[in-house]
Amino acid sequence: MKATRRPGPSVRTRVQELTASGERAHEDRLVTEEPLEIRLAWPGTPAHRVWLTMRTPGHDFELAAGWLFHEGIGSPTTVAYCTDQDLRPDQEFNVVTATLDVAPLRLPSARDAALSAGSSACGVCGSDSIDSALEVAAVARWSGEQMESEVVRSLPRLLRERQAVFDRTGGVHAAGLFDSVGTPLVVREDVGRHNAVDKVTGARVLGGSSPAEAALVVSGRAGFELVQKALAAGVGALVAVGAPTSLAVDLASDGGLVLYGFTSAERTVRYA
Amino acid sequence: MKATRRPGPSVRTRVQELTASGERAHEDRLVTEEPLEIRLAWPGTPAHRVWLTMRTPGHDFELAAGWLFHEGIGSPTTVAYCTDQDLRPDQEFNVVTATLDVAPLRLPSARDAALSAGSSACGVCGSDSIDSALEVAAVARWSGEQMESEVVRSLPRLLRERQAVFDRTGGVHAAGLFDSVGTPLVVREDVGRHNAVDKVTGARVLGGSSPAEAALVVSGRAGFELVQKALAAGVGALVAVGAPTSLAVDLASDGGLVLYGFTSAERTVRYA
Repeated sequence: MKATRRPGPSVRTRVQELTASGERAHEDRLVTEEPLEIRLAWPGTPAHRVWLTMRTPGHDFELAAGWLFHEGIGSPTTVAYCTDQDLRPDQEFNVVTATLDVAPLRLPSARDAALSAGSSACGVCGSDSIDSALEVAAVARWSGEQMESEVVRSLPRLLRERQAVFDRTGGVHAAGLFDSVGTPLVVREDVGRHNAVDKVTGARVLGGSSPAEAALVVSGRAGFELVQKALAAGVGALVAVGAPTSLAVDLASDGGLVLYGFTSAERTVRYA
Repeated sequence: MKATRRPGPSVRTRVQELTASGERAHEDRLVTEEPLEIRLAWPGTPAHRVWLTMRTPGHDFELAAGWLFHEGIGSPTTVAYCTDQDLRPDQEFNVVTATLDVAPLRLPSARDAALSAGSSACGVCGSDSIDSALEVAAVARWSGEQMESEVVRSLPRLLRERQAVFDRTGGVHAAGLFDSVGTPLVVREDVGRHNAVDKVTGARVLGGSSPAEAALVVSGRAGFELVQKALAAGVGALVAVGAPTSLAVDLASDGGLVLYGFTSAERTVRYA
């Protein structure tokens, strides 16, 4: 019989705090980090592993649905914890199976395949693997009004107010989807900032709504992978609290995505 | 003829800064983010792609050498930019070939293989892929004295003083290797914190030195992947400026690695 051990988003631990005046033991909370394996099934095809990520438990089905959507693979009709007999009890809540009711629009990208051991000999493949890493799944784009600067600058505070796990651990990223007047539609947290964005989009997809809204807000920096996800989700703007990278700005410009960085109540910087 | 375009660690861009009092255009610097493909060759075997990462250009050979070392694959004798004719000019400095003079100790981990599309049908494999993701390459461990708390608390400042790219862009992580009295041995920056750690270890490996020193210091949080790299490098302690995760603490405890989080001049917290 399997044990039921459903991990929470944070765990208690004993720590030693060291300062100039000495040492003291106390209790602290850590953000939970555990692996999540995503398996994909569709009619006539048994489930196959398609991805493994380290994530904070919670909203696991949304994470799977959002990742599949951002990758352009499809929108699953159901996601459930895997009940295969080969799973050890400690992995019972670390494997999900997502089911599509049609064949996938595409399979996990060549970016992932490029990561596998000795996938192909070199000499004819260099450009392919790099180009495929920069691909973005085609999308329906949000076409409403652009957000006022004042609304953009209010978003980090609105996101921060909803970061319950960060309050307890100080070690977790957040992402949120907002409408054009700054109403929060969904906010999710995760130890990985990409996972937090996957969860936000997945919440919309599993809820039957489009993720194409006015703005996606992220608590950290904006690298190219977050811009890829924002383009795939079809949002109007990506608003980051931290710095963007060169590739993020290039990709956002190419895709017509408005990109804000270094966003606070006082200011924001528009890059694309 | 190929163009020579060697990317720097940061690039200039025009931005719009938006505040309550209006809008103003100015010039800003972005951290450069570009793909790096790593190919591996050894006697009797042609080069194969083994990894693709998004990184900040600079110290690319060290990044490749450190990644191969942390993965337990081996210590390359040479690393060079790939000169294959299939490379487009814009990718000339984005592909490196690392050469081992013996066969690899192991091939890129099953963790990577688990990421490839439909690598195996499910039913017998779930535990395998998760376990392999948590594997750590065996190492020679640093066996000197543990660092004094005062020295630990001085490390973030010593690291920060050496972050030239951060000064210009505000968007980059750093990692540094320090001896037991806090002397910086090597400091590297990268848009990806894992890459910064790979570059630090790679600098030691290519320089013929062991990466097993008193402390590895990282500018951000400590997740399980950084603990894996610290264990593989054989350092005495991993010192993070940010929060550790639950899996990082578990893995550090199991491996006998001292782990510090929330480290500043005022205090540090010892977790394992």
